[in-house]
Amino acid sequence: MKKGRLDDVVVIGVGCSKFGERYDKSYEDLAVEAFEEALQDAGIAREDLQAGWLGTFFPGFGGGMAGSSLADAIKLYGKPMTRVENYCATGMEAFRNAAFAVAAGMYDIVLALGVEKLKDRQSRGLPRIDWHPLLIKGNTAPGVFALAATRYMEKFSIDRKPLACVAVKNHMNGSKNPKAHLRKTITAEEVLSAPLIAYPFGLLDCCPVTDGAACAILARKEVARELKKDYISILGIGLAVTSARPQFKPDFEYIGFPATVYASNQAYEMAGIKPQDLDFAEVHDCFTWTEISNYEDLGFAQKGEGWKLAVDGDTAIDGKIPVNPSGGLKSFGHPIGASGLRMIYEVVIQLRGKADEGRKVRIKNGIGLAHNLGGPGSVACVTILGGK
Amino acid sequence: MKKGRLDDVVVIGVGCSKFGERYDKSYEDLAVEAFEEALQDAGIAREDLQAGWLGTFFPGFGGGMAGSSLADAIKLYGKPMTRVENYCATGMEAFRNAAFAVAAGMYDIVLALGVEKLKDRQSRGLPRIDWHPLLIKGNTAPGVFALAATRYMEKFSIDRKPLACVAVKNHMNGSKNPKAHLRKTITAEEVLSAPLIAYPFGLLDCCPVTDGAACAILARKEVARELKKDYISILGIGLAVTSARPQFKPDFEYIGFPATVYASNQAYEMAGIKPQDLDFAEVHDCFTWTEISNYEDLGFAQKGEGWKLAVDGDTAIDGKIPVNPSGGLKSFGHPIGASGLRMIYEVVIQLRGKADEGRKVRIKNGIGLAHNLGGPGSVACVTILGGK
Repeated sequence: MKKGRLDDVVVIGVGCSKFGERYDKSYEDLAVEAFEEALQDAGIAREDLQAGWLGTFFPGFGGGMAGSSLADAIKLYGKPMTRVENYCATGMEAFRNAAFAVAAGMYDIVLALGVEKLKDRQSRGLPRIDWHPLLIKGNTAPGVFALAATRYMEKFSIDRKPLACVAVKNHMNGSKNPKAHLRKTITAEEVLSAPLIAYPFGLLDCCPVTDGAACAILARKEVARELKKDYISILGIGLAVTSARPQFKPDFEYIGFPATVYASNQAYEMAGIKPQDLDFAEVHDCFTWTEISNYEDLGFAQKGEGWKLAVDGDTAIDGKIPVNPSGGLKSFGHPIGASGLRMIYEVVIQLRGKADEGRKVRIKNGIGLAHNLGGPGSVACVTILGGK
Repeated sequence: MKKGRLDDVVVIGVGCSKFGERYDKSYEDLAVEAFEEALQDAGIAREDLQAGWLGTFFPGFGGGMAGSSLADAIKLYGKPMTRVENYCATGMEAFRNAAFAVAAGMYDIVLALGVEKLKDRQSRGLPRIDWHPLLIKGNTAPGVFALAATRYMEKFSIDRKPLACVAVKNHMNGSKNPKAHLRKTITAEEVLSAPLIAYPFGLLDCCPVTDGAACAILARKEVARELKKDYISILGIGLAVTSARPQFKPDFEYIGFPATVYASNQAYEMAGIKPQDLDFAEVHDCFTWTEISNYEDLGFAQKGEGWKLAVDGDTAIDGKIPVNPSGGLKSFGHPIGASGLRMIYEVVIQLRGKADEGRKVRIKNGIGLAHNLGGPGSVACVTILGGK
């Protein structure tokens, strides 16, 4: 097999809206807020864009359905605009498909934009399960991830305290991030005594439901050079899908998320690096335990030992491998289709050394990783950015 | 700008399920029915596939949500699988993104599969509009396209008879196609006297709602040669999006679908051909008038004169430019996410000279076009296949 590389594709601009309860902004307003920042960052005009990819998980009235929702938001017509969806990994999928189109030589400058408005809407778009006697009971995101977490906790003999360490760390980082949804520090005691949602997850083990948008502008390297633009290169991308139904999983014995293992192996191989080469990572911490599993699935720790990184502070801003310097889904928030691109945004800002004081990571090799997980852990997308 | 080409990407296999009221088959069964045919056609094993793109417009219980729905249908795990959606152009979008990934050098052999199960389901997934006093009244597909059709009919002084010619032609072709949904001939009198749905569209001016799946297997040309496989090349692809809201259309004066004009111009330019070079076309005839507009928007006729092609028989199987030899959406059926790939399937089968007797087109230049339209005409995707 020919080994694919994205040598010719770079990121020349990123943008991110304020995340939170954005009752003041429509779906399109949020998209524009992120988009305008990215345009300015890239130093290009709107008309320079030749194509777009939109990441939205829940289509709703006002946006999210088809490429027209992106065209109508940024008022750019007559060009190719595509919607992609892959559960909570939707945002990074927009980035991935945009990168492939540039690498294919189809376009010089393209947009990948993720946006989701979750706070003032009905829960539409998902298949209705309210007729089903079992699914209606507990088949929620907390319910599904709780089953995986309790299995891990039993197998590796830990209680809820290591999970709480993840929440405390991510809120610490997010408290210093002006764009974060939940900008406040919390204590382990608060996490452990918060109302229980689905054991072992209390309210503060769960990421919030959020409104927000984020985007990246990708270009051919040659074009970026002509524009005299600083850029960040795409070193590796991986995507893997497993079954959304536990009974079909050939890898059921694995405790954690095989999709992340497969996707990160693809990305590491393409980038020609090992996990140890990373300066930091943005990972999908939809629940506190998810981040612990991610440490292991991404190769930062042996299986069963990821929780120690959280307890020992190894993933804090000044730790060996800082994780979620942005605040993560836990503090920054999780507007589904936006999260993957929000991670790309954070990795780019950190690699440029432009993150806020107090949550700036140390850059040694100039390589960062972003990891987006979706469904019942059945899809993962991993992007490695860095260098030139 | 660098001119993109897809010289390195070819189609090595296609498959299509029986279209119709498939109460006997689940969403996944339909996907498998098309998939098995394509695997056999390509002469490869399931495991040879390195990535997949799924086109489904309405996610439903049992499938259509995220890449996992494709992995679970064909039982292929640990690989990249992506869902794309772009209104009724969803199927061809899956093909387009798959082609870009191969052209980028990321994968050698990939699958683009479209599937939709519409007959035994609630209408889920679309944003709910039942709270809105105006949208609830007539903002249906027939209602929206009827407004465009009546404007055309008034401007160019035609009645419903030319529209009926399209239905008669497409049913004639579909009657000879064992996989078509509505396999019967109809007369112009039947079309004109059928119950009215939304003037000028009677029941027989509207394509049916259908269950079905279709797919294509794409490969790098070098790999196809190693496999000693016959293949059909991708000569051009275009995609364009306009506003989904008439009030924002800068091109409102245009009678027809500017998205089709933009997308086909992109595709013609990439392929280096003109409309006259085509041997035949599969176009998006969601309503009879839509096909007439497509003739003009695709450059087969001047604006305002497309209806003459239908009346004069120029687009019949033995006409100057046969259109919808498959039977089209009108007779073959329209399972939304599948239709674009069903068109690709038909173009490949015709170019190979393998279509059923009585609906086989004459191949001169060996070039065919497929055209997929979506939303209120706000997105169009055009693919030109041919040669080697």
